[in-house]
Amino acid sequence: MATRILVWGENHHDVHDARTREIYPETMHGTIAGALAAQLGADARVDTATLDQPEHGLTEERLADTDVLYWWGHVQHHAVDDAIVERVHRHVLSGMGLVVLHSGHFSKIFIRLMGTTCALRWRSDRDREVVWTVDPAHPLAQGVPQPFIIDEQEMYGEFFDVPRPDELVFVSGFSGGEVFRSGMTYRRGLGRVFYFSPGDQDFPVYHHPAVQRVLANAASWAAPDRPRELPRLAMYLPGEFDVPREWTGEPQ
Amino acid sequence: MATRILVWGENHHDVHDARTREIYPETMHGTIAGALAAQLGADARVDTATLDQPEHGLTEERLADTDVLYWWGHVQHHAVDDAIVERVHRHVLSGMGLVVLHSGHFSKIFIRLMGTTCALRWRSDRDREVVWTVDPAHPLAQGVPQPFIIDEQEMYGEFFDVPRPDELVFVSGFSGGEVFRSGMTYRRGLGRVFYFSPGDQDFPVYHHPAVQRVLANAASWAAPDRPRELPRLAMYLPGEFDVPREWTGEPQ
Amino acid sequence: MATRILVWGENHHDVHDARTREIYPETMHGTIAGALAAQLGADARVDTATLDQPEHGLTEERLADTDVLYWWGHVQHHAVDDAIVERVHRHVLSGMGLVVLHSGHFSKIFIRLMGTTCALRWRSDRDREVVWTVDPAHPLAQGVPQPFIIDEQEMYGEFFDVPRPDELVFVSGFSGGEVFRSGMTYRRGLGRVFYFSPGDQDFPVYHHPAVQRVLANAASWAAPDRPRELPRLAMYLPGEFDVPREWTGEPQ
Amino acid sequence: MATRILVWGENHHDVHDARTREIYPETMHGTIAGALAAQLGADARVDTATLDQPEHGLTEERLADTDVLYWWGHVQHHAVDDAIVERVHRHVLSGMGLVVLHSGHFSKIFIRLMGTTCALRWRSDRDREVVWTVDPAHPLAQGVPQPFIIDEQEMYGEFFDVPRPDELVFVSGFSGGEVFRSGMTYRRGLGRVFYFSPGDQDFPVYHHPAVQRVLANAASWAAPDRPRELPRLAMYLPGEFDVPREWTGEPQ
Repeated sequence: MATRILVWGENHHDVHDARTREIYPETMHGTIAGALAAQLGADARVDTATLDQPEHGLTEERLADTDVLYWWGHVQHHAVDDAIVERVHRHVLSGMGLVVLHSGHFSKIFIRLMGTTCALRWRSDRDREVVWTVDPAHPLAQGVPQPFIIDEQEMYGEFFDVPRPDELVFVSGFSGGEVFRSGMTYRRGLGRVFYFSPGDQDFPVYHHPAVQRVLANAASWAAPDRPRELPRLAMYLPGEFDVPREWTGEPQ
Repeated sequence: MATRILVWGENHHDVHDARTREIYPETMHGTIAGALAAQLGADARVDTATLDQPEHGLTEERLADTDVLYWWGHVQHHAVDDAIVERVHRHVLSGMGLVVLHSGHFSKIFIRLMGTTCALRWRSDRDREVVWTVDPAHPLAQGVPQPFIIDEQEMYGEFFDVPRPDELVFVSGFSGGEVFRSGMTYRRGLGRVFYFSPGDQDFPVYHHPAVQRVLANAASWAAPDRPRELPRLAMYLPGEFDVPREWTGEPQ
Repeated sequence: MATRILVWGENHHDVHDARTREIYPETMHGTIAGALAAQLGADARVDTATLDQPEHGLTEERLADTDVLYWWGHVQHHAVDDAIVERVHRHVLSGMGLVVLHSGHFSKIFIRLMGTTCALRWRSDRDREVVWTVDPAHPLAQGVPQPFIIDEQEMYGEFFDVPRPDELVFVSGFSGGEVFRSGMTYRRGLGRVFYFSPGDQDFPVYHHPAVQRVLANAASWAAPDRPRELPRLAMYLPGEFDVPREWTGEPQ
Repeated sequence: MATRILVWGENHHDVHDARTREIYPETMHGTIAGALAAQLGADARVDTATLDQPEHGLTEERLADTDVLYWWGHVQHHAVDDAIVERVHRHVLSGMGLVVLHSGHFSKIFIRLMGTTCALRWRSDRDREVVWTVDPAHPLAQGVPQPFIIDEQEMYGEFFDVPRPDELVFVSGFSGGEVFRSGMTYRRGLGRVFYFSPGDQDFPVYHHPAVQRVLANAASWAAPDRPRELPRLAMYLPGEFDVPREWTGEPQ
C-alpha cells in the first residue's frame, strides 16, 4: 500500500521573496513533494497543504489519511492555530510520522513534542555544509553518499537545545568551523519524528540529490506499520492475581 | 554549599482524606521534606510549598533560590496555573533539577517536558511492588537494596507513554504480574529530571527507608553544578571563517 | 528477495535430554526454524546449522549467504571454536543480523559483542513469565499481544550485566517477583543484534505463538538492507581543504 | 577522599621521537599527570605507569588502588599483554573508571569493551579542530569554553565504528570539513568509560587548558562512588514466591 505523504508549507517566502521564487518556482513544499513523488514512485501518494488553506489544510480527515507529514515553516510559526497544533500532536502520538525540516525547529509542533526551547545558533552567509553519516546502517542513510556537500547553506550550530535523540544519524560541519547534529530521530507516543536540518529558502538545498534521498528514506522510515491508536489514558486494571489473558486493546 | 530543596505538594489528600492524614500526619510533602532533611543533614536546606499558597508558593524568587524541586500532585493537576507551569518549565530548562513523584506523571509540568500523554495503567489494590535496580552503578542507586520491597502499593503498569529515557535506573514488578519502568532520567535544556513512581497517598510508601534513600540520592544527582542560564534563543554568529575565540556566553 | 535465515543450535539437550526431546521432537533449532518458515512463508529461506557440523556449520560461504543468524546455546558455549566466533563477529560487524536466544547470553559471540560479563540471575522452577511491550510501535512488537503470558519458564532476573541497550522493547515480570529486560536491541558495526530471553530447553516456550511472532518480526528487523561491508580500518584522508567529492567507499 | 588516578602511557614516542620529546619533555603521560595534579590538587593522587614496567605497571595491587585509569597508546597496542588487558577489563567492569585518549581507540582494552572495530578516518596535516559541547550541563563540560579551538591537530573523522554512546558530550569540526564525535561516555559493568579524542604525540594538545579541564572533569566523573565488585556470574535464586528479603549482595 502506498505511503500517504503530506508536505506542509507555510508558503510565505515562496510567494513574497523573489530569491525563493527564483530558486523554487514550484514553491518549496511543491519542490519537496515533487522530489518525493519522483523518488518513491508508486510507493507513495504525495500531496501538499499550506498555512493559508482552511484549517491550514490539516483537517481531521486529512491527517487521518496521512502516514507521514513533512513540515516546513520559518517566519509564520506564530500564525499556526494552537488547535491545529494539538490536532497534529495527537496524530503523531497516535502513530503518524513527522519530518521536521530546517527552520521548523521553532515550529509549535516541534517545540510541543520536544519540551525544550529548540534554540540553536545560526548564520546565513553562504557557508559550505558537509553532512556526515554517523549511523551508516540506519535506514535513513541508505544510498546517501559519505559525506555529501551542500555548497551554500545557512549555518546551524550547537548547542541545539533539544532532548537527547533516540538516534543520531547525521552530523554536519560548516566552513565557519561549526558543527550541528543535523539528523536526529525521536519516538513520541506511537509516532516517529525525524528532524533534518539541511534545507533553506535562500539556497537550492531541496534540489540536492542527497537531500532528496534522505527525505525519501524518511517516508519509509516514519510511516506507521499498523493502525493508528492514541496511547490509552490511565486505565484501571482489575485486581486479580492472574493477569487477564483477554487484554487485547493495547496499541501495538 | 547546601543543596536548596523545595518539596511541592498539592496538599489535597493530606487535608481531605482520613486515610492519608493517618498515614502522613505531617502531610505527604512534609514527610518527604523531613526524610530529605534527616538523610542529607547539613548538605541540604529543605522547604515545602503548596498549591493553596500565593502563586502556589512558586514565585520567581523562590524558584531562583531552589536547586531541586520535588513535585507531588494527584487530583489537582488542573488547578495549577498555566503561568506557574511555564515558570517552573523555564527554571528546569535553565538548570533547576526536578523530581516528579508517582501520580505527578499527569502533572502539567511533566507533560510539558515530555511532550507525550504520560498515560499508564493502574490499579490500587494493595499490590506488592518489588523494585529492581537495572543500572547498579548509577548515583541514584547508591545504597539502595537490590531489590527492595514495598508491601502495599498502587500498581503502575506499562505501557507508560513517555519518551525513551536517557537512563533507566529502576524497574518494578507487581504481584499482579505487571512491570513498570519506575525510575527514569531525562535531561531537558540544562536541567535534570527524574521520574520515580514508588509513592502513594493511600500507602505509607514515603516512610520506606529505601524510597527515602532514592529521594535523597536524587537531590545530589539533580542539583545543578553551575550557575543557571536559559539556553540561548537562536543566536546570530558573524560570518568570518575563524570562529571567534571570545565566545564565552554559552551555558556550561 | 527472501530473507536468508540460519538457525544455529548447539544440539545438546535436543539429543541428550529426554525432557527436551519430548518437548521438541524436531530439536529446538528445528522447531524455531519451522516456526519462522511457517510465519514468513515465501519471505524467507530458513536453514539450520549445529555445533557438531564441520566448522559448526558456519563456514565463510554459509555466513556470506546469511542475512540473519539465530543463536541457541546453553552448556556447550566453551566448545565453540574461537576462530568461528571471530568469523561470526566479523559478519555481524559487516551487516549480518544476529538474534541471541535465552541462554545464548553466555555465548562467546554475545560476550564478544557486548564487552561485559553478560551475567544475570536465574531460577528454573516453573515460574510464570509475563512479557510486556514497553516500545509499542517498535517493529519487533508488531502483532504481539500486550502482555503475553508464558505459563512455565525459567526465571531470568536483573541485574543483567550488558551495556545499556539502544532500544528496550520488552520487559518481563516473573511470578517470583523478579523482572528482566527481556528484549533489547544493539547496533554493532553495520549489524543489528537482538537479545530475546523467552525460550528454554525445559519448557515448550518456542511453541508459544507470541514468542514465534517476535522471532519472525526479528528476521525482518535484523536483516541488512544493503550489501555487506566491514567498517573500514583507519583510513588516511588527503589533506586538502575541500573534502574530495569522489569519496564513495563508505559503508552505507 | 582523594581520587586515585593512574595515567598509563606506552612511552614510545616520548622516548624515540624528537618532535614528541620537544613538545612533551616530561613525556606525554607525565604531562597529563602533571596537569591533573595541578588542576585537582588535594582532590587527587596522581601516578603514572608505562608499558616497559613489569606487568606494564598494572599489577593487581596497583589497579585495586586506582579509581580512574587514563590510557594513552598508539603504535605499541600489540605489545600489551593479553592477560593484563583482561585484568584491566575486569577492574573496569568492577567499577574502575577508564579514560581512553585519542589513538587509544585502537587499544586492546577499548576494543574489548566496545565489541567493534573502533576504526575511524584520520589525516595528520595540521588541521584546526574546533570542539563543541552538545550536552552543556554534563559534568564533563563544566568550565569548558564553547567552543574551544585546537590550532593544530591530527584529524579524526567519521564514521567511527563504536557502539552508540550512552552520552555524546563533545563533537569536533576540522578545517578539512570533517566532523567527529570527540567525547563519548559508556557504562560497562559497574565502570564508567570516557573516550576523548583531542590529544596527539605530534602536537601540544595536552598543554591546552580546555583539554586539561576536560581531563580533570573526567577524573571526578569516572571515579566510582562505592566499593568495587565484579557483577556476579549467573546466580541461582531459590524458588519461593516471596522474594527473599535478605538479598543484599548485589553490586550497588
